[in-house]
Formats: sequence, structure tokens, C-alpha cells
Amino acid sequence: MDQEKRQSIYLQAKQWVLEAGKTIRSRINDPLTISTKSNPNDLVTTMDDDTEYFFAKNIKQTYPDHLIISEEGYGDELESLDGTIWIIDPIDGTMNFVHQKRNFAISVGVYQDGIGEIGLIYDVMADVLYSAKRGEGAFKNQTRLPQLPEKSFHESILGLNHFWLCENSLVEEKVMQRLVKTVRGTRAYGSAALEFAGVAEGIIDGYMTMDIAPWDIAAGIVIVNEVGGKTTNAFGEQVNMLQKNPVLTCNPSIQTELIEDYMKKGKK
Amino acid sequence: MDQEKRQSIYLQAKQWVLEAGKTIRSRINDPLTISTKSNPNDLVTTMDDDTEYFFAKNIKQTYPDHLIISEEGYGDELESLDGTIWIIDPIDGTMNFVHQKRNFAISVGVYQDGIGEIGLIYDVMADVLYSAKRGEGAFKNQTRLPQLPEKSFHESILGLNHFWLCENSLVEEKVMQRLVKTVRGTRAYGSAALEFAGVAEGIIDGYMTMDIAPWDIAAGIVIVNEVGGKTTNAFGEQVNMLQKNPVLTCNPSIQTELIEDYMKKGKK
Repeated sequence: MDQEKRQSIYLQAKQWVLEAGKTIRSRINDPLTISTKSNPNDLVTTMDDDTEYFFAKNIKQTYPDHLIISEEGYGDELESLDGTIWIIDPIDGTMNFVHQKRNFAISVGVYQDGIGEIGLIYDVMADVLYSAKRGEGAFKNQTRLPQLPEKSFHESILGLNHFWLCENSLVEEKVMQRLVKTVRGTRAYGSAALEFAGVAEGIIDGYMTMDIAPWDIAAGIVIVNEVGGKTTNAFGEQVNMLQKNPVLTCNPSIQTELIEDYMKKGKK
Repeated sequence: MDQEKRQSIYLQAKQWVLEAGKTIRSRINDPLTISTKSNPNDLVTTMDDDTEYFFAKNIKQTYPDHLIISEEGYGDELESLDGTIWIIDPIDGTMNFVHQKRNFAISVGVYQDGIGEIGLIYDVMADVLYSAKRGEGAFKNQTRLPQLPEKSFHESILGLNHFWLCENSLVEEKVMQRLVKTVRGTRAYGSAALEFAGVAEGIIDGYMTMDIAPWDIAAGIVIVNEVGGKTTNAFGEQVNMLQKNPVLTCNPSIQTELIEDYMKKGKK
């Protein structure tokens, strides 16, 4: 994607993201219709649905040849990453949205033939927009984020869902427990997109999760990349944006040790 | 403590808290001298020290008969809770202060003969003050916090350090892991004072930790109490403000189940 096209799509995407966020803020205290998806704690609300519809309708009208990968069903069924693809989570951190009315984000990534060109993560209630264009740096609102500094493994802080310390089929919980005791600290904020933004900002030095959809990470990958951070699947390979992945995003100083010493597949 | 005395001390305490916060904000990007205390991840900075000194000096000058329990050494050595006692953590969440430059708080509780009369938790960088006076309600800045609503155990969100899911001497980690899988979600923010504030605001429904000092919780107990929340040690007994305790603060709907089914002492 050339710079001119990237800039044009970026400006349009940003406008839609801010508009969708404004709508969500204006409706934050409305009664919610909440459903559950794969399990009782996998929540979805009419706001997720309405917001995704807003993006899908606008994208299809403005860019009829663009494609969409998204969470709530308005996207396309894709078997390849060819073309210009919008990868959208209308509300990342739905549990926070429902229970906290804050600490959730709109996440929009735009990819060209599998390469992340644009990333937008909008912390809606804080009115903070993390954004990046490939090769042009990452920003928190208008402020350019600096390159990530060197970090020692023992002084790093990781974002990690508590679930991965319990018996599970995807990662060795004993190894994760050893990791918790090795690093300086661990945090869990409840929104993958905002944890990616946190890695980009250096608030945390890494975030890992063993089973995450493309829309939760598409924008974050672009933003983290622009400050020198690294995102791969848990085994150091490229993330596949057509399926769920175990994902690790982090400061480059701690990537090798995390992958080699801690990313062990689960028992089952 | 009568209402007039409480109000007078409250106004003075609030003024000092806001002034100390302003100083910290003005120095947030200064180089830090960081030391470690009980272990390499138990951090203390010159800012903790300076801020505690500011409180201790002012309290001793203004209220020569008041006593102080505090983290960094300017307090009194107390063997009883008789009298008016200020219980102070100058920077709660020092790791966040050092690594994130946000998400830390000044925590000040004022107790009379062991009873919490005033609580102030100041989220310094967000400039948000949580406050309460006994019997007079809790506030977030100028807004009165509502009483906590009824919550079902399965739909609750808990604040919990990852460490308690790893083998440790204070709580059965397997039971904690079962708890993580039973509730709707878990979070870890890295400041006990702000997790207490989160419980008071209903952002999380409970927060537990197995080994925490009085200064981390003194203000929070007063604030949580004013919205109908409950704080006890892990076994449902009154917290002892002269020593470290395992502490549980929560929405009253989930207190009994948490204590009876999950608070099991560790193996060693």
C-alpha cells in the first residue's frame, strides 16, 4: 500500500473510530441487552453489534472492494489475506464495558495482502487514541510514542490473564507460575487491545494470551511494531490473521527468553 | 470522634493529600533513586520517602498528640490503637509509579481508638480523589458513590495478584485457581489502595490479598464501608491495624461464599 492510499484510509478510519466512540459514550448509561457466546463469561451486547454494523456499512459503501474480518458477524468469510482487509473489534473488553463502563476499546486494523498498514485502538471512555501507520511511527493522541527502551527480564512487567496460571489445555500452568515468580510484576486489565497499547507505551513490557482472535490484535500489532516491539505466535512464528492464535507481544529485549523458556504447550 | 473534629481533620488531610499529589505530578519525570526492601521487587523511591516526610512533619506540627503508622519510617512504634492515628502510604503501587508513572495512589486513613473515621485515596496522575468520612458517605471527587448493588458470585469480578495462584505459603493455590474459574473475571492493577477504590466504585466486586500492611488498606476500609462493602481478614475477623493481615474487601453479596469456600490457608 502506498503512503497516499494509507493516509487516505487512515483519515477515514480515524473519523469512523472517533464517531463510533462518541456514540458509545453518549449511550454508556443506557440499559444493555447482554448475551453470552461461547461460554457464560464471553459477553456480547447490542452495543458491540451496533458498532460493528456502523463500521461494516460505512466500509462497504465507501470501499466496495475492501474486505472485513470482524467479531460479531458483519464481516466476510475469508480464506486468504489478499486485498485490503479491515480487521475490527467494535468493543474489545466487553466484560469491562458491561461491568466497569470503562477500560474497553475500539480496535481497527487495516491490512494489505497480509501486511498491517494501519492500527487504531481507541480507549473510548478515556478518549485516548493509539494509532500507527506502517513505517510512520505510533502515537498516543498527538504525541509520538518513543522506541521501547532496553529492559531486563527480571525487571519486566507482563500482562497475563489469571486463567493461564490455572490448569488448562493450552499452556503449562506450572511454567506460567514460574514466569510470574521470575518477572517483576504481572497485571491483568481485561482488554487485549489496551494491553497491546500498554506494551507500545511501555506501561507493560509484554502481554501474552494463548487463544486470541485476529480482531483483538490486528491494530495492536501495527502499533507495537512501530515502537520496535515484536509480536509473534507463542512459538515465535508469524501470527495467522485468519484464525485464533496463541500470541505474545513484547519489548524485543525479553522476546527470546519468553518464547524459549516459558511458552510450553499444555498437557491436553 | 465527633463530626466537627472529623470534618476539621478531613479538610486538613485532604489539603495535604492534594498538595503532595501536585508535588509528585510536578516531579514525575525527574530521575528516581530506587531501592529495594524485603525483596528485589519491593521497591521504594526517594519520592515515597519525601512524601511520607511531608505528611509526618505536618501532622506532628499541627496535631502534636496524633500518632502515625506509615510505611517508610517516619511513623511511631505503636502497641495499641488508642488515640487519633494517621495511617499513611505515601505512594501505594510503587512498582506502577516507577514503571508506569501512573496507577499509584496516596492513601491516608485517620482512625480514632481503632475506628476508621476518614479515608482518602488519591489517584495522583488521574487527579481523582476517593474520600469518605464515617457515616457520611463516600465520594469520587465531588460525586457521591452509590451503595453497592446485589451481585451474584458467578458474575463478579475480583482483583487478585497472580502470585496467589502460584505455590505459596499463605493460601492454597489450587483453591484460588478454582476461584478464578468460578467468577466472571479477574483483574490485577498493582495498587491495593486503588483496588479498594475499585471495590467502592463497583469496578471490581472484591479484592483479596494474603499479606498486606495497614497503610495499604486503612483508607480503603473506610471508603468501602461507606458504600456498604465489607472488609475483614481472610477468615471473616476484624483486620488488625497493628500488623500485616490477609485481607478480603468486597461487595457484601459475595463475602460469605468467598470466606467459607475459598479462603484456605496454605500448605506451609
